Amino acid sequence: MSSTPTDVVEDFTRRDWQGDDVAGTVRVAMIGLGWWTRDEAIPAVEASEFCETTVVVSSSKEKAEGATALADSITHGLTYDEFHEGVAADAYDAVYVVTPNGLHLPYVETAAELGKAVLCEKPLEASVERAEKLVAACDRADVPLMVAYRMQTEPAVRRARELVEAGVIGDPVFVHGHMSQRLLDEVVPDPDQWRLDPELSGGATVMDIGLYPLNTARFVLDADPVRVRATARVDDEAFAAVGDEHVSFGVDFDDGTLAVCTASQSAYQSSHLRVTGTEGELEIEPAFYNRQKRGFRLSWGDQSADYDFEQVNQMTEEFDYFASRLLTGTDPAPDGQHALVDMRAMDAIYAAAERGTDVAVDVDAGTDADADGT
Amino acid sequence: MSSTPTDVVEDFTRRDWQGDDVAGTVRVAMIGLGWWTRDEAIPAVEASEFCETTVVVSSSKEKAEGATALADSITHGLTYDEFHEGVAADAYDAVYVVTPNGLHLPYVETAAELGKAVLCEKPLEASVERAEKLVAACDRADVPLMVAYRMQTEPAVRRARELVEAGVIGDPVFVHGHMSQRLLDEVVPDPDQWRLDPELSGGATVMDIGLYPLNTARFVLDADPVRVRATARVDDEAFAAVGDEHVSFGVDFDDGTLAVCTASQSAYQSSHLRVTGTEGELEIEPAFYNRQKRGFRLSWGDQSADYDFEQVNQMTEEFDYFASRLLTGTDPAPDGQHALVDMRAMDAIYAAAERGTDVAVDVDAGTDADADGT
Repeated sequence: MSSTPTDVVEDFTRRDWQGDDVAGTVRVAMIGLGWWTRDEAIPAVEASEFCETTVVVSSSKEKAEGATALADSITHGLTYDEFHEGVAADAYDAVYVVTPNGLHLPYVETAAELGKAVLCEKPLEASVERAEKLVAACDRADVPLMVAYRMQTEPAVRRARELVEAGVIGDPVFVHGHMSQRLLDEVVPDPDQWRLDPELSGGATVMDIGLYPLNTARFVLDADPVRVRATARVDDEAFAAVGDEHVSFGVDFDDGTLAVCTASQSAYQSSHLRVTGTEGELEIEPAFYNRQKRGFRLSWGDQSADYDFEQVNQMTEEFDYFASRLLTGTDPAPDGQHALVDMRAMDAIYAAAERGTDVAVDVDAGTDADADGT
Repeated sequence: MSSTPTDVVEDFTRRDWQGDDVAGTVRVAMIGLGWWTRDEAIPAVEASEFCETTVVVSSSKEKAEGATALADSITHGLTYDEFHEGVAADAYDAVYVVTPNGLHLPYVETAAELGKAVLCEKPLEASVERAEKLVAACDRADVPLMVAYRMQTEPAVRRARELVEAGVIGDPVFVHGHMSQRLLDEVVPDPDQWRLDPELSGGATVMDIGLYPLNTARFVLDADPVRVRATARVDDEAFAAVGDEHVSFGVDFDDGTLAVCTASQSAYQSSHLRVTGTEGELEIEPAFYNRQKRGFRLSWGDQSADYDFEQVNQMTEEFDYFASRLLTGTDPAPDGQHALVDMRAMDAIYAAAERGTDVAVDVDAGTDADADGT
């Protein structure tokens, strides 16, 4: 191998993506004012180097104007209608879309028409078809579209990817991934929430949290899913409409790696990602919750090392990455095409659970969408 | 819950299965003299309280007589033919059958005819049909049959089962299980070994090591598999005949728990078992290798505890358990019916990998076998 484990993890939390030439500030409009925007995104942007929140957009004028108090930099509180009309469009350079999944499309379409850069929460939309339209809208308008996979700018995940690429664990063979929380008891105690409405969410568990091990595995392996198998189970009536409260799925990657993942909206909060290779093993645990301290262990030969590193705010890292790309005129990643692969993989996971068979991830659809978008 | 985590794990390595009334010694004939018998089983029996090795049985007289030097208690070295003829049958009370999987049946049949108790290595045989015959032979002769799942007398696994039963992690939701080693590089460096011959092994990876997470999950959950999905991949030509070098499988249990497991004969040595419940999580890691120190972590609420405990020799525990049951006239577990469920589950795993569909574990076959055996 070309580098030792020590080389690769030197300066664990370094922003390998940030050049010396970044200058300026990207002004962000936050579309959607749920708890994530208020408690996570706005404070994370306040702590960032290259972003500021200038506009907040919500369902009512009162709610939006009230939220202007959340940061000194916020100058405008708009309704969704005002946003669509282009009100105060000079006050922001980019939008962060954090509405329910099934409402991403209209806001991204408007942002694209206004020539704004887009940071869109994952999953891209509530269905593959709507996600394809979303990507096509950004392509047509030639605006940058980044999808908010915050794990891809988490240092533990970036170091894992570097170690895998450097061959420190040999050839990857398996991934174990898991994410669970108690949505109704501890996160959002409301049985009428949009995550439980299939039209708005596209699914409760695979779409909301199963996506974390799936996408993080893709990123760490630098590989794409080709085939899945799955099962889903519902205990709580609140999940009857979406059909996925507890899910287990297998994902075969195009590099040969076999992944097994589990996710639940009704289990003890826990998350991990483990990659076992021919020569060693990497584990990130806890892995996926911004507010939990991430852990990192590397084992190779007869040795293992637990890395203790300064924890970052994943949302601050994500916003600074997004802004630094815009400020240097380079395309941010993960882009829409990358996120469409997850949409197709999750579609296949739901189909596999329903049919009780393995399902191929529809890569041809990806080719078609590419053709549409260019 | 009825007990606290501290109550349940008090005296971590206690032999909860051993009463005060055990007295005597069970004399064991070892059938098969591979590295496992020589390096693990015979020394483990020497360290036991209630067993001694008195007879060793192998393919040639020279090999068998040479092996009588492995312990002072060994009085006879027999050929397989001599064993079948009942030579020195007065010198042993029980047999430990540790030949290749596909050869268990004839030795167990002879042992049963001779009225000897049987400790048979797992998996029971190389096929479900032969395994059913093996169980039927013991039933007909009314001799005790125990299958050598050494994890079931491993203290970490027994404490995990107790904690799950006591409700410390709430209702189990998921299991992650994994076992890997580098068979050809590090364990048995011989491409002509029996594990790679489908007639003798019934499969290389699911049957030899995938069985560990499968059976240990069953034991910890006190539940049985009902449905599986799987995939298998071969990189190394040596595994072409068996077809399973790397495997990934999902197992749905009858209590609703969803398990995901991986196993490889060509990956970094590693093993773990994790049970995530509604209220907490249990992890055993390393889990399945007798020579690796087992680790044990319990997480519940905002707390987690790593238990450091005296490591036991799993084979010594297993032999003493087996002997203590025989000496007190009680049936040892896991018995043949228990092991047949694994045989059917593994058969379903291989079928699922071949067909690319979920496969139900054939529980009706179990009923038939019960009927045959009684």
